[in-house]
Amino acid sequence: MNGSPEALPDPREVVERKRDRGQLTREEMRSFILGYARGDIPDYLAAAFLTACYLNGLSIEETTELTQAMVDSGRTIALLDVDRPKVDKHSTGGVSDSVTLVFVPLAASLGLAVAKLSGRGLGHTGGTLDKLESIPGLRTDLSVDEFEAQVARIGCVVAGQTEDLVPADGAMYALRDATGTVASIPLIAASVMSKKLAVNSDLILLDVKAGSGAFMKTPESAAELARTCVLLAAGAGRRARVAVTDMTRPLGTAIGNALDVAEAVRILRGEERGRLRDLSVRFAGVAVSSLLGGSQAEAEQRAEAALDGGAALDTFALMVETQGGDHRVAEDPAGVLPRAPHRVDMALDRTGFVVEIDAEALGRAAAQLGAGRVRKGDPVDPAVGIEFTATVGDHVEAGQPVGTIHSRTPEDAARAEAVVRGAVTVGDEAADPPPMVFGWYDSDDVEEAGG
Amino acid sequence: MNGSPEALPDPREVVERKRDRGQLTREEMRSFILGYARGDIPDYLAAAFLTACYLNGLSIEETTELTQAMVDSGRTIALLDVDRPKVDKHSTGGVSDSVTLVFVPLAASLGLAVAKLSGRGLGHTGGTLDKLESIPGLRTDLSVDEFEAQVARIGCVVAGQTEDLVPADGAMYALRDATGTVASIPLIAASVMSKKLAVNSDLILLDVKAGSGAFMKTPESAAELARTCVLLAAGAGRRARVAVTDMTRPLGTAIGNALDVAEAVRILRGEERGRLRDLSVRFAGVAVSSLLGGSQAEAEQRAEAALDGGAALDTFALMVETQGGDHRVAEDPAGVLPRAPHRVDMALDRTGFVVEIDAEALGRAAAQLGAGRVRKGDPVDPAVGIEFTATVGDHVEAGQPVGTIHSRTPEDAARAEAVVRGAVTVGDEAADPPPMVFGWYDSDDVEEAGG
Repeated sequence: MNGSPEALPDPREVVERKRDRGQLTREEMRSFILGYARGDIPDYLAAAFLTACYLNGLSIEETTELTQAMVDSGRTIALLDVDRPKVDKHSTGGVSDSVTLVFVPLAASLGLAVAKLSGRGLGHTGGTLDKLESIPGLRTDLSVDEFEAQVARIGCVVAGQTEDLVPADGAMYALRDATGTVASIPLIAASVMSKKLAVNSDLILLDVKAGSGAFMKTPESAAELARTCVLLAAGAGRRARVAVTDMTRPLGTAIGNALDVAEAVRILRGEERGRLRDLSVRFAGVAVSSLLGGSQAEAEQRAEAALDGGAALDTFALMVETQGGDHRVAEDPAGVLPRAPHRVDMALDRTGFVVEIDAEALGRAAAQLGAGRVRKGDPVDPAVGIEFTATVGDHVEAGQPVGTIHSRTPEDAARAEAVVRGAVTVGDEAADPPPMVFGWYDSDDVEEAGG
Repeated sequence: MNGSPEALPDPREVVERKRDRGQLTREEMRSFILGYARGDIPDYLAAAFLTACYLNGLSIEETTELTQAMVDSGRTIALLDVDRPKVDKHSTGGVSDSVTLVFVPLAASLGLAVAKLSGRGLGHTGGTLDKLESIPGLRTDLSVDEFEAQVARIGCVVAGQTEDLVPADGAMYALRDATGTVASIPLIAASVMSKKLAVNSDLILLDVKAGSGAFMKTPESAAELARTCVLLAAGAGRRARVAVTDMTRPLGTAIGNALDVAEAVRILRGEERGRLRDLSVRFAGVAVSSLLGGSQAEAEQRAEAALDGGAALDTFALMVETQGGDHRVAEDPAGVLPRAPHRVDMALDRTGFVVEIDAEALGRAAAQLGAGRVRKGDPVDPAVGIEFTATVGDHVEAGQPVGTIHSRTPEDAARAEAVVRGAVTVGDEAADPPPMVFGWYDSDDVEEAGG
């Protein structure tokens, strides 16, 4: 200690310490992240930092400080006018994963508030904003005031993240994408959780997908990410419940923006059963039992009733209308949603049991049709995509329809059909599909660290 | 393989491969390094690359490709008009290390050609260019044509590196300095050897310093760098002989630019004995025996005779004069070289044997007096510095002079004297000093790799 005013940590020394597997202090992490978010630290130094973090890892204490610094890089949303218990929900991204579209109005119809900031699709995974925007007129670029007012009034809202919320995340994500440092569990967890912590809520639900169609390819790596996220929630004094769920195959039957909305409407109308409905009910049950009391089984029964009785559908229609969209989508999705000019039923060429479906291949095929984007900022085609109704364990007959390709041209359809056929394995014996949920992680189970 | 024209490797994929401890191909390394040198690859991606190299290492094959790509980023110097056998020499940098000043004219006086590109001092280590420029009028900013012509005519030249020689090195070094990725043996070896390979020579002599006053702090790490350098020479089909030498204490007695020149002149005049003379003779002996034949002992005798008989001094005077300097420095250094306004003799406060001298502390004290620079591009003061005549193993008497501080102000001198006193350990028993040379490494001992 000398008598001079306390100096900020030298950012190069912060990088060198991480390079040497040292433990960064709270102040070192904060000054580096906030300095980068302010533009005081150049990209090359942040790239060296991220590469060192990627290769040497971050302790949970460092990840906690990183996450909090990211939150503090921008504004937060307090939701002070919301009276109901508040639940937030996030999925790490999958194929035919429209749980958010179902969960948000479902949970709101059960008495919870859901203020949800969503992202766009990238690569083979879809994005909730892209899906919702296939509904004519619907806006997702709400101001923070609009966002807060809507959830206070009707109990739910889904909008895009504003630039002043966790600005460090946008800058760091772009640099990670450019430098091959995306696939780091602490960096992913900090990115996910900083955005959840920046919005006030009583419960954070995370759905960490595991399998070929997800970013985390194995249940083990997904579990590590899940554990890190609950530790970050606990460190911030917030409640989180995190599921690791199966993404070895598409969750629902639709892969494409308007197709996903149409499927979500079918579920909200009580017309479609299957894993997409089951997982939505599971999350709604966890939210209701955690925040309103009662058992998980009772809460799931309430959720089933809200789907079958129309309450969730009414809330969905109200949310769509409040955000400027055509609420008739809830009654007549086919009449409201955009429709691709070519629709070709497809069949498999072998009779037997579906043993495996390469979810990533299907996601990429839909993206190639125009439903997804290769680069951030690319436009998406709302109408195109793939419906594939068979799933693992089903018996299929050669030549019998198992889905429909929705495309701009016949050539696009033929190409997609070939990919889908190649992505589906049919065998002679029925295989047991993996469970829908591999495991749950709860921030309440985290022991208090420190004194 | 598809039919499209061969695409260059994606630089982000190159970084990802190194991140994942993969082995880079020749083409991947070349396209990345040459792309960076051209400005096509942004600093942040190169920073991620260098951090991954720092943490995951580079194989000798990768280091060889890196080095060759660095050479190929700029022009090379062929020295086609030089008839004599050509020797190049480089030191990794030490304190009171003026071997180059002695070696260059000494080897030239023995019938060899020495075309030497040198650098400037940084931190606690001195630089040959700074030292030579303390001679009034002497130019080191020679054009390549001047450089080649001088060595063809008089057998020796020492000049600064031009920007078009190994431009990748300058760009990469600045980024390494900014991102904490300097201390990587493959990156250091590639930087050193690329500059040696870019100038044609029949023998490359390297002096890898080991100890407190050097960049490599231990003989083991210095040996690793030495081994890497001989492998790089062998891979390029060039001959290199590399010594790991002691830098646990200053090599000579002078630390400061004009002071270093004055000491070199004393050695070239046969007036000063000690390790600086011995090491210069050793290197000259290796060069002569390797390139002109005969034993090491005979070659060293020839070198001793050239120092004691005046031949080396004459060559030095001719080189100084050819580069525009005042050749009288060879006869009367005190009359020609700049002189600091304050000169204070210093003593130690204890009688006994010198056990240890912290060479880095002495180097830093001289730099603080103005002899060195903290940042590239800072000016240096040619006149100031430290003369310290005692060395490890010597017996010293309290209060008896052991050196002189040359400074701008009395305050500077007092500060430096305190540092020097603190940097010298005096004990009751004489300690054995480390050997002058820890070991030699020869590219001729490298087994042929591959077929």
